[in-house]
Amino acid sequence: MTDQPRFNRARNPKHATQDAAAIDAILDAGLVGHVGFVAEGRPMVMPMAYARGPGCIWLHGASKARIVKLADGAALSMTVTLLDGIVAARSGFHHSVNYRSAVVHGTGRLVTDAAEHDAALQAITEHLLPGRHAEIRAMTAQERKATGVIALTVEAASAKMRSGPPVDDPADHGLGLWAGVVPVVTALGRAIPDSHTPAGLAEPPSIARARARFAR
Amino acid sequence: MTDQPRFNRARNPKHATQDAAAIDAILDAGLVGHVGFVAEGRPMVMPMAYARGPGCIWLHGASKARIVKLADGAALSMTVTLLDGIVAARSGFHHSVNYRSAVVHGTGRLVTDAAEHDAALQAITEHLLPGRHAEIRAMTAQERKATGVIALTVEAASAKMRSGPPVDDPADHGLGLWAGVVPVVTALGRAIPDSHTPAGLAEPPSIARARARFAR
Repeated sequence: MTDQPRFNRARNPKHATQDAAAIDAILDAGLVGHVGFVAEGRPMVMPMAYARGPGCIWLHGASKARIVKLADGAALSMTVTLLDGIVAARSGFHHSVNYRSAVVHGTGRLVTDAAEHDAALQAITEHLLPGRHAEIRAMTAQERKATGVIALTVEAASAKMRSGPPVDDPADHGLGLWAGVVPVVTALGRAIPDSHTPAGLAEPPSIARARARFAR
Repeated sequence: MTDQPRFNRARNPKHATQDAAAIDAILDAGLVGHVGFVAEGRPMVMPMAYARGPGCIWLHGASKARIVKLADGAALSMTVTLLDGIVAARSGFHHSVNYRSAVVHGTGRLVTDAAEHDAALQAITEHLLPGRHAEIRAMTAQERKATGVIALTVEAASAKMRSGPPVDDPADHGLGLWAGVVPVVTALGRAIPDSHTPAGLAEPPSIARARARFAR
C-alpha cells in the first residue's frame, strides 16, 4: 500500500492505470471519498459523499460549510479507497494490503445552475441508494437553498491497486510459516426501519440494489 | 456526512469531540488512513497503512517515495473514516451516512533514529495483524534502508461521528414511506494461504486477533 520497494519488481502485484473505466468502477463502488483541499497552507482531508457527473465529481455540503465557501476556483482532489485484504507475508517488509484506489485532481466550481444543482443532489442520493430518488418526497426550495453543491472538474485521474498473494523473498518460502491473504469483506447488513415506518412495510427496492453492489 | 444543515439542531445525531480516547479508538479500528499533504500547491491525499506512536502517527513508504522525501518538516494530516451505515430518510435532504472519523493534524518528521525506525515498522505490521511481529523472520539491514518512516507529530486531533436513525422533518413521518438505516458491515473473511504455506498449517494467532477487532 505504501509503495514499499520490492527487490524483484517483475513480481510486483501492484498495478497503476489511467484507464477511465477502471477509475469509474472504483468511484462507483465507493460510498465515501476523501476530499483534499488546502486551507491556510494546511492539507485538509474530509470524508464526503459524492457522485460522478459529466467530467466532474459532485460533492455537497451545507451552504455555509467551509469546504463549500473555499471550493470555488480552488485546487481540489478526491481519493476513494476500497480495502480488499490484509497481505500477511513471511517478513514485516513484505506485509501489505490489497486495495483499489482512485484519485481525481481538479478545480472546484460552485454549482449555481438550478438544473445542475438538482441533478447533483439527485445523483448523490442515488449513489448511496440506487433508485431512492423515486421513492421519496421531492426537494423543497428551502432545502435547495441550504445545500451547496461543488463540482470537482476532473483534470487528471488515476487508479492504483494491489491484488493477489504476498510477494516474499524466495529464500523465505521454505521457512514453514503461514503466509497469505485475509480478505476484508464489506457488505450491507439487515436494514433497520425507524419508528415511523409502517409495520410490515417491505424494504424498498433501492436497498436491494445497493446491496447488490457489494456482491462481487 | 457532508454537514447538511438540519432545521432542528436539537435532533442532530452528529457528534464532534476532541476526546483522546474516542479519537484513539477510531485510529485503532481503522486499517488505512488518508494522508494529506501539499505538493506544488495542490492537495494530495494518499491511502497509507499507519500505527499510533507516542504523540505521533507513524507512516512508512519506500525511501525514495515522494511523500517520504516531502514529509520532513511539512504540514501533514491524516483522516481515518469508518463507515457504519447508509441512512435512508423520507427526503433526499435528510439522507446521510453513519460513520466515525478521526482527523489528525501536525508536522512530518523523517525518522532517523534506528530504534524508533524499528519500533515504527513493527507497530505498523502489528496494527494490521496484532502479534504478527513474533510470527515472522526479523528485518534485514537492506530492508531497513529501503523503508522510510515518517512520524506525523500530532498538533491537533478531533473526531466526528453520526449514528442512529434518519432525522426526518416531522411532517414527513406520516408519508407511509420506509426509512431507516442499512448497516455497512466490515469483517475479515476466510484466510487464503499462499502456495508456499505447508499443507494443513493452521492460521496464525495474529489473524484471529485481527478478526476479533472487527467484531463489535
